[in-house]
Amino acid sequence: MNIKEKLAIKAKDVEKALHDYLVVREPTKLYEAMAHIPLAGGKRLRPIMAQLTCEMVGGDGLKSIPFAASLEVIHNFTLVHDDVMDDDDLRHGVAACHTVYGLPTAILAGDSLFAYAFEMIVESDVSDKVKAELVRHTAYTVRRIAEGQQMDMDFENQTNVNYESYIKMIKYKTAVLLGSSMQMGAIINNVNEIDSKFLYKCGINLGLAFQIQDDYLDLFGDQEVIGKKVGGDVIENKKTILYHMCFAKSSNDQKSLLNEIYKSDDSNKVEKAKKLFVETKADQAALNLVKKYSDLAIKSINDLDVNQSKKQELIDLSQLLLTRKF
Amino acid sequence: MNIKEKLAIKAKDVEKALHDYLVVREPTKLYEAMAHIPLAGGKRLRPIMAQLTCEMVGGDGLKSIPFAASLEVIHNFTLVHDDVMDDDDLRHGVAACHTVYGLPTAILAGDSLFAYAFEMIVESDVSDKVKAELVRHTAYTVRRIAEGQQMDMDFENQTNVNYESYIKMIKYKTAVLLGSSMQMGAIINNVNEIDSKFLYKCGINLGLAFQIQDDYLDLFGDQEVIGKKVGGDVIENKKTILYHMCFAKSSNDQKSLLNEIYKSDDSNKVEKAKKLFVETKADQAALNLVKKYSDLAIKSINDLDVNQSKKQELIDLSQLLLTRKF
Repeated sequence: MNIKEKLAIKAKDVEKALHDYLVVREPTKLYEAMAHIPLAGGKRLRPIMAQLTCEMVGGDGLKSIPFAASLEVIHNFTLVHDDVMDDDDLRHGVAACHTVYGLPTAILAGDSLFAYAFEMIVESDVSDKVKAELVRHTAYTVRRIAEGQQMDMDFENQTNVNYESYIKMIKYKTAVLLGSSMQMGAIINNVNEIDSKFLYKCGINLGLAFQIQDDYLDLFGDQEVIGKKVGGDVIENKKTILYHMCFAKSSNDQKSLLNEIYKSDDSNKVEKAKKLFVETKADQAALNLVKKYSDLAIKSINDLDVNQSKKQELIDLSQLLLTRKF
Repeated sequence: MNIKEKLAIKAKDVEKALHDYLVVREPTKLYEAMAHIPLAGGKRLRPIMAQLTCEMVGGDGLKSIPFAASLEVIHNFTLVHDDVMDDDDLRHGVAACHTVYGLPTAILAGDSLFAYAFEMIVESDVSDKVKAELVRHTAYTVRRIAEGQQMDMDFENQTNVNYESYIKMIKYKTAVLLGSSMQMGAIINNVNEIDSKFLYKCGINLGLAFQIQDDYLDLFGDQEVIGKKVGGDVIENKKTILYHMCFAKSSNDQKSLLNEIYKSDDSNKVEKAKKLFVETKADQAALNLVKKYSDLAIKSINDLDVNQSKKQELIDLSQLLLTRKF
């Protein structure tokens, strides 16, 4: 069985758990709203990373359900609330929860998904000690994600956000949940604290690589592959990694031009930004960062003293993601 | 020491735990928003009920901190999100979280309080088995509260909401958290399932009594005691217990009049409703319901095979609440 077939089987297990939990009951509007985004599809990346990590350290990936599925529920709760906060009407071509069910029910649906995730954790087939650890890590991770989202919103009104702050923001907003997914996948199999923290950092590095790649592809990707209009971040004046790399590598004149482009509503704004990012080699710098963080993550996995074939699955998954083939 | 002094000491312990957890850190806007409503005061009723129940069944109330304080955090998370959903600008004279910090940060602050509650539970000095039980009950309770809030919003657009549905709604929206507070206070001291469920029902009955009394006082109370304008529910066309009791006890003509009053924007609307509720004895019927549910709760407490003096504290607290002296 190749890696893609293995991932498909794991995604199916998660899918089943999600359908089991997200059945519609009274009051139907709330439960329909809860199911709307989680059951609209997705790679189920976080549960799969938890399962693969669990297996890598010698555990039974199947036993990690429904806990692993709870990671997907947590991820979806944050998506539902983020769409409300950012006033986004669409998510990967699907109408946002609040677009269909209204703002109040979308808030409630997010809250209820969050609650459900904890119910899923305590119904998992693990010891009470492990349950308490999973709850601690999940709750802490959600608080970190919220900090990242707040930083992201704060940055919209700040002119002097530096590269370090930006990396910290995407680490909190996106990477910690991937780190926690790997860490908790290991905790299920009672892995010691040192190794579980090591896996947490490994997941963080992978998460940073994925997010920086997302930033790059938003402007330099293919519309069909990224599933949305090219250059959306520039149009919305989002200072992603390309902006920060450009700023770091440009002359004073180029810096002025960069800020002018971001301030303007010019119809050629996207093309102008793209040209400047190529001129200043911000595009290459972003790709170098993707490589830096993914190399760090893969090195960490290779350094682990565990079964090689199981390591390879996590490495293969990472590489599929970085080539956008998963 | 009289009961009021005892309650004040318990409230102080909760206050301390809340201040310990809700310190402001980066990003400051988020943490200030999180602290805004919880630290603006309150009776700390739910933690106190958990502590008194814990002591009633032979446990150490102080050991229930920070778990007991987590109940207050859960309560406040629901208040912050409810205010967003209901677009309420004020809460007991304090500006709502979203009024001060904006809607996106208010949503995040609620989410982060919710997450914090689980961190507080797993940091409590109880066994892992008890932690898992507390997490299960807390998460389930939040889902029930969300169901109640959804029912409440659904009812606004329905003309044929009956009394039973109304009671179910206030049970979910308000009473289950009081029930869970008592139940979990007992679980901390490893009380068996039968007794803990009995205490849950007892808390539910108390919660129903308090909510029905709130409905009554909104129109028949003293502005100074209730801390808000008299008749607010009638002005907002909220079909509270008085509406349902009136509807059940009125002639066809009175039913028409009732619906006319609710539909109108008449400046004498509140006085007209009050007159009709007195004529149909809806006011007395509401008070009888308060008595029915509080008698049920107090009987349950008296039936328990535990120390009489500890029972008395819970009974005294209930009576203080029902006479609005706490």
